[in-house]
Amino acid sequence: MRVITTIEEMQSTITQAKNSGQSIGYVPTMGFLHEGHLTLIEKARGENDVVVISIFVNPLQFGPTEDFSSYPRDFEHDKWLAEQQGVDFIFHPSVEEMYPRSSSVTVKVNERTDVLCGKSRPDHFDGVATVLTKLFNIIQPEKVYFGTKDAQQVAVVEGLVNDFHIPIKVIPVETVRESDGLAKSSRNVNLLPKEREQAPVLYQSLLSAKKLILEGERNHEKIISIIKEMITEKTDGIIDYIDIYSYPMLEEIQLLEGKIIIALAVKFSKVRLIDNIILEISEK
Amino acid sequence: MRVITTIEEMQSTITQAKNSGQSIGYVPTMGFLHEGHLTLIEKARGENDVVVISIFVNPLQFGPTEDFSSYPRDFEHDKWLAEQQGVDFIFHPSVEEMYPRSSSVTVKVNERTDVLCGKSRPDHFDGVATVLTKLFNIIQPEKVYFGTKDAQQVAVVEGLVNDFHIPIKVIPVETVRESDGLAKSSRNVNLLPKEREQAPVLYQSLLSAKKLILEGERNHEKIISIIKEMITEKTDGIIDYIDIYSYPMLEEIQLLEGKIIIALAVKFSKVRLIDNIILEISEK
Repeated sequence: MRVITTIEEMQSTITQAKNSGQSIGYVPTMGFLHEGHLTLIEKARGENDVVVISIFVNPLQFGPTEDFSSYPRDFEHDKWLAEQQGVDFIFHPSVEEMYPRSSSVTVKVNERTDVLCGKSRPDHFDGVATVLTKLFNIIQPEKVYFGTKDAQQVAVVEGLVNDFHIPIKVIPVETVRESDGLAKSSRNVNLLPKEREQAPVLYQSLLSAKKLILEGERNHEKIISIIKEMITEKTDGIIDYIDIYSYPMLEEIQLLEGKIIIALAVKFSKVRLIDNIILEISEK
Repeated sequence: MRVITTIEEMQSTITQAKNSGQSIGYVPTMGFLHEGHLTLIEKARGENDVVVISIFVNPLQFGPTEDFSSYPRDFEHDKWLAEQQGVDFIFHPSVEEMYPRSSSVTVKVNERTDVLCGKSRPDHFDGVATVLTKLFNIIQPEKVYFGTKDAQQVAVVEGLVNDFHIPIKVIPVETVRESDGLAKSSRNVNLLPKEREQAPVLYQSLLSAKKLILEGERNHEKIISIIKEMITEKTDGIIDYIDIYSYPMLEEIQLLEGKIIIALAVKFSKVRLIDNIILEISEK
């Protein structure tokens, strides 16, 4: 495994690999790898000749009051995990390497942004789409792997890849969870012990909603209020949003039918967690 | 030579060519080919295995009051010219093929846009950068050719390619002119006969400015006023702008030194013409 820190070396390494006919699988990360990432890497390992991961905490996708500086980092441990997992190259550029000066161009995301996490994080997805456009051009993979824990991100990336005709296949991979149901996240380490005990309620509330829907409930408001009640009663978290939208277009829906996402975000004292489930509702 | 109208066919054709080790040279055009384009194609033909041109009048780069519908088109003649010139593929998609619905992502150009043509054409370069991002991903050339007649466009494209790390080399090619000095342009056909007679004054005025500078003149205002006087006296055109900037950053400069561009735009009754010269000024 090789760690590459410059764009030039990464591009020339990729060109060599592609010229010798090798397929490239790519997992973009912000580091502090957990089993969620490892599942993505494992999938990439099984489907490609060369596996590249990037570890880059992208300042462009953090708002001015957000946790860019406190976002957890542990490169040495990440490196060890990546090596165990059979990664070929870690692309680990500095902020100066990726943004030597203000960018003359950025990507603007025009759809699916004023809902869910986008609502409270203006410009977040512009930052995500901009850095991914850069990374996709540097690494030029055939396939790129994303966890559906951030389902809105997957939807935005699908839009980016489709509308710009980027010759890459986006592979969504299901959320990996702790044994108690909490979605794996690099940010979980910032939960207080008491909050860590409460956090599985987020997923439990989504499962309760799912059960209700499977039993025939189609009332939007009722489902949201059930989730709200559980989280309010059983955690100290403050609800940022609980929403139901069509998926992947993330449009408001009157009636619960077709493919939908139930997604939530809850703020704990030092960290904001997100989770979601995606359901295909068939006619009754 | 083959005409391709769908993105899917273009991408698969390119993939085949690249897989067999062929290099791709690309000339983006809005059609109504003239010698300026043919020079670009000739250069591409000499440097690549496969030459692709696109003919697409991009609605996204025209303002609401601009000449999208009256922009000249003559696909049959273009096809004939391209074939003569040894083009391998013409990519000629419909507007619906390129923009089946509003785009979920667009490129925003943050620099070099509030000067020259960008000043009177807000969003123009966003439209240019967005369609080129799409076309670059569809055609995936090693080299792309642009005429420096639209020097601001070349500067913006260099920014796009550099800042997004697009693995393409931008080749600027010098403006091709009529024997009387008028820069070749598809829009020239919209000049009235009298205006066509006057139009060479644009380039003559730039040459006069160049002569003054070579003789030692460094006064910004004086040079601009000389150009203004010539155009006002000798044409019926209305001056949109006459400006001097650093090149390629297009920043205002106090003192004329280093690489500079003198650029102008003049409105005639049915068409607006642009022209420029780029000079390297050495110390006196």
